[in-house]
Order: sequence, then C-alpha cells, then structure tokens
Amino acid sequence: MLKGKPLLILTLCFAMVFISMANARAGDPLPSWNDGKTKQAIVDFVSKVTKEGGPDFVPVSDRIATFDNDGTMWSEKPMYIHFEGVFDRFKELVKEKPELAEKEPFKSLMAKDYAYFTAMLEKKDYLEIVGNLLGVPYAGMTVDEYNKWNKDFYATWKHSKYKVGYQNLIYQPMVELIKYLQSNDFKVYICTADEVSFLQLFSEDLYGIPPEMVMGTSIKLKYEMDGNDAVIKRTAEGQYLNNWDGKPRQIMSLLGKKPILAAGNTNGDYYMLEWVAKSKGPGLALMVYHTDAEREDKYDEHIDKTLPMMKKEGGVVIDMKLDWKTIFPAANR
Amino acid sequence: MLKGKPLLILTLCFAMVFISMANARAGDPLPSWNDGKTKQAIVDFVSKVTKEGGPDFVPVSDRIATFDNDGTMWSEKPMYIHFEGVFDRFKELVKEKPELAEKEPFKSLMAKDYAYFTAMLEKKDYLEIVGNLLGVPYAGMTVDEYNKWNKDFYATWKHSKYKVGYQNLIYQPMVELIKYLQSNDFKVYICTADEVSFLQLFSEDLYGIPPEMVMGTSIKLKYEMDGNDAVIKRTAEGQYLNNWDGKPRQIMSLLGKKPILAAGNTNGDYYMLEWVAKSKGPGLALMVYHTDAEREDKYDEHIDKTLPMMKKEGGVVIDMKLDWKTIFPAANR
Repeated sequence: MLKGKPLLILTLCFAMVFISMANARAGDPLPSWNDGKTKQAIVDFVSKVTKEGGPDFVPVSDRIATFDNDGTMWSEKPMYIHFEGVFDRFKELVKEKPELAEKEPFKSLMAKDYAYFTAMLEKKDYLEIVGNLLGVPYAGMTVDEYNKWNKDFYATWKHSKYKVGYQNLIYQPMVELIKYLQSNDFKVYICTADEVSFLQLFSEDLYGIPPEMVMGTSIKLKYEMDGNDAVIKRTAEGQYLNNWDGKPRQIMSLLGKKPILAAGNTNGDYYMLEWVAKSKGPGLALMVYHTDAEREDKYDEHIDKTLPMMKKEGGVVIDMKLDWKTIFPAANR
Repeated sequence: MLKGKPLLILTLCFAMVFISMANARAGDPLPSWNDGKTKQAIVDFVSKVTKEGGPDFVPVSDRIATFDNDGTMWSEKPMYIHFEGVFDRFKELVKEKPELAEKEPFKSLMAKDYAYFTAMLEKKDYLEIVGNLLGVPYAGMTVDEYNKWNKDFYATWKHSKYKVGYQNLIYQPMVELIKYLQSNDFKVYICTADEVSFLQLFSEDLYGIPPEMVMGTSIKLKYEMDGNDAVIKRTAEGQYLNNWDGKPRQIMSLLGKKPILAAGNTNGDYYMLEWVAKSKGPGLALMVYHTDAEREDKYDEHIDKTLPMMKKEGGVVIDMKLDWKTIFPAANR
C-alpha cells in the first residue's frame, strides 16, 4: 500500500497529467487570431455544426469547406505568385527562340501591352485567355516536365518586396483555420483561379491539403504514346476557368455537394461566397479584407461587388489589421 | 496464486482469445473470389506496395485506385443502368409535351433510329452527344430537382432480367476489392462514363465511395438567382466526356497523380488501363471479362482493343466465371 511521500508524489503526478490534458483540450486552435467578433463567429459556427443533437448539426459527410487561394491563403501583390512562373517561362521561351517575340501572345506580354488579351476579355473568350496565358508557355511538355519546371522555378524564386519564398507568403491564421476545420472533420478544398496543376504541387506542404483536394482552372491535356511510354502532355488550349460563377459550378460538379463554409477575398469569389452565405441551412462565408498596409497590404481593388454582398448576406469580413495577431508564419520569416 | 482448474481455465481462455485474434488477422479480405492466379495477383500487388522498406513500397499519398463503373462495378446489360432513367425521362417529357416528339433528339430516340447520334459520332462531336443525351432531358432543373428525380426513379426501377433494383446489380467481389484497398490506405475513386451527378447519388451506399470521389462525364451547370435563392441549374450542353482518353486526362487533371491500380472492362477503359499497365513503378491494371452466361452475361463487345492490350502489357484479366465465387451480393438477391 502506498502512503506518505510516495502517495503524495503519485497524486502530484496524476494532477499534472490531468492539468496538461485539460490545457490541451482548452488550447486555442486559432492562436494567430485576435479575440473579437470575427474569431468568435468562426468558433461559434464550428461549434454549432459539430454539436450532435443541436439544431444546426451537420453530419461529417456534409462538412465541406472551400478556400480561394490568391489573397485568401497567400499574398497576391504585386502579382499572383502563379504568374511569376508563367511570365518567367514566356521570357525563357523568347530567349530560346527570339522569333517568338513577334508572335502573340509573346508580343503583347513582352511589350506589356495587353490589348490582345483585353479584346478576348471583351468578347468573353475566357478559355482563349486561359489557353494563351497558361497553356501556350508549357504546351507540349509532359505533366512531369511541367511539374519539374515549376518545382525548380519556385525553389529559388523570391518575392520582390518581402524577399522570401512562396512558403513564407502564406497567411498563418488561415492555415490554422484549415487545421481547425480538419480537426472538426471538415473536408477542406482549395478552389482557386490558379491553374490546378500548379497549386497541386504545393498545397500539401503549404496548407496540409493534398493535391486531389485542389480545384482550379485547367488546360486541356493529351494522352499519347511516346515510344513505348504512355504519357500525358499539356496543350495550348484552355479547358475550364475556375473564377466567378465557375467556382460554384465546378464545386457542385466535382463534389456533388454545396460547401457549408467558403473563404475568398475578391469579386472572383463573389458567387462562391454568395452561394454559401445564402444557404438555407448553416453556411459561413468569409472574406479576407486587406486592411494592413504596414504588415501586408491595403487595397480595395476587385471587391466592389463582394464586400457589399458579404455585409448584406451576413458574411463575415476578416479585417486583416484588426483580426490577425500575426500574418505570416513566424518560423519562416 | 492460481493453480489447478482455475489456472487451466484461464490458460484456455487466453488461448481462445489468441486463436480468434489470429483468425481475424488471417481473415480472407476477398471471400467472394476463388483462389487462383487472379486473386493471388491482386493480393501480391497490395502486399508489395504496402510493404514498408520493400522495393515496391508506395507511400500512402500515392496509393490511388480508379474503377470504371458499368460492367466493372455493376451489370451493364441489356442497357447501362444510367440510361434507364435517361430514356424514361425522355418519355416523360414527350408525354407532358407531345410536340417534342417531332423535335430532335426526342424524335430519333422515340423512333429508336439513331442516325441523328451516329452523325455526331462520325464527326466526333462527343460533347454534342453528351448534351443531347444527358443534358436535354434535365435542362433547366436545379441540381436538387435532378437529384430528387433520379432518387425517385431508381427507388422503384427493376432490372428487366433479374427483376431486382440497382443495389442488387453490383458485383460483390469488386465491392470487397474496394474495401480491401481502402483498408490498405488506398484512395479509391470511381471513374465512369456515366454522368458524375448521377453516380454521386449512389456511390456511397453501393461501394462506400463518397460522391466527391466519383469522376465522370459532366454537363455544363449554371449559377443563378431564383428570387432570393442562389441555385445551380442544369443546361443542355455537354461539358466533359469521361471515356477513352478522357479518363486518364481527367484523372491527371483532378488528382494531379497517376493511379497505381485501375479496373475497367471495355475499350472505353483502354487508355486508363494502358496508362497504369505501362507504369514504370508498380501498377496493376484489371479488366473484368464477362464470361459467365449462366450467372450474369457472356460477351465480347467493345473489348477488341482492350483485351489484347491487357495481355500484352501484363494486365490481369478477371474471368468472371472462373474467378468469382459469387457475383451479386447474396443478402440482397
């Protein structure tokens, strides 16, 4: 029988174990978020949809969340990170074959005169734009060659202002939010206007989201025999533009379900956010509002439709400056 | 101290527990498959790709498997089950509006004269066919209305020969194979020429595959406001044909990865199976060969490209008659 000092030690040990367990349970899943209305709205939403027997309970199979990427998960200024590689590849091609500089879309891009593209935009030839911008520079590459090119390029690329790589340009509070949702049995997808094949290369490392849970813009692929090998090659043709109403349409087509949570930041996310904000059942629409000139950026471009809609439909606007304790992952900077 | 009879009883109890544990471990994960080369090839493949440290080990993130549906997972004769609903819907529409019978594609379908479609086929206007067959009959419906229509129709539909519902037309050995792969940390997808929205309604119940893991043919959707509701409606236009080379192209585009196992049955699966059979790393291509006139069906249609390719590339042909102990789920028949 234990008594005296040994009993005391054992009791203390148990007490310490229990305290540490209680702390872990009470641990803040969103430490980079300041306390306030926004954080509370997120926590309240997750609590109510996961509360079994509650009026807003959502079964695990329907806990779907979709997150935009540029400006929602990582910095999008001064240029979409995806386009850094794309434009570099255009330059690389012109260097290899100078005669390309006289041909479109190379000519417009080299001259930074975008009339060639704005004409397509006016005619709503969106897939023409996708093909010209994302297809042409890598056309004829196998998917493996494309993957290697991008991995190589981004391994050394640095942001012009922050002088850091892409891994250091993600928003720590949003990564925490994704982990928090996943730990509450949400299936979290990225739904981006970037090319899907591009972001699939990095999503697992950046956000803990596997490539098969990335939805994006796509270009047509081609299956062919290369000698005795079966390969998949890229073409110059656009296949799908995952922006504006293309987001909810692709989500419904691929998942067969409507998300109960969506996050975005600009007019490109308008329809995805409106769709979720207008849910009859529980639905949380989040918009990252870039209000922090000091720590990141402050801008109101391309939000003139989305910001008022969010306010009207009860969406939650994340005010970067007020709501985020830290912006970028501390360990990386 | 235990001794005598109590010790004996305790020892026997432990022995029984250990024996039952050993049995559970040794339990056959594929009880509906006859022992033989085919079953052994499957078990050997799964063993080698899951053997940590082995030369053919595949990390969990790359254990992707893709299964065709019609003729691979359930009966496809005398007609694709999906088309039972589609043709019924065409008839329903003509009944509602008899003047449609004079219009295409209603006219050809009602007359069972398919020249209208074969002309598209000859011009390779595949998306025209998809739009006419799968888009037209449900155009203007919201996705919810489409889902309800299909659930209602298939709740009572019975197979003309077997006189059973769709749940009883699945192949028990293939369902076991999917479970076996899932229990070995494979992500198993359906990759079908059926419309994705159709199969998404049933895949979880039938195969334990959630809707978001079904890839298929699709029609264009439309996002719109219906009063104050945001709804997604169907159009009459084809978006993607998931057949022939469309299968590997869609798999690569959506998953960003090549499967290490694929199963199919006809020429529609040729490219998906060839792609996997020709893998440089481990890759298992399976073809369900309908050889059982007595228990299911015996036919050689649409396999003239795929069967020789499977033999040439080291794929595994599943001989229904020889390899399957049971075909349909016993409890259901």
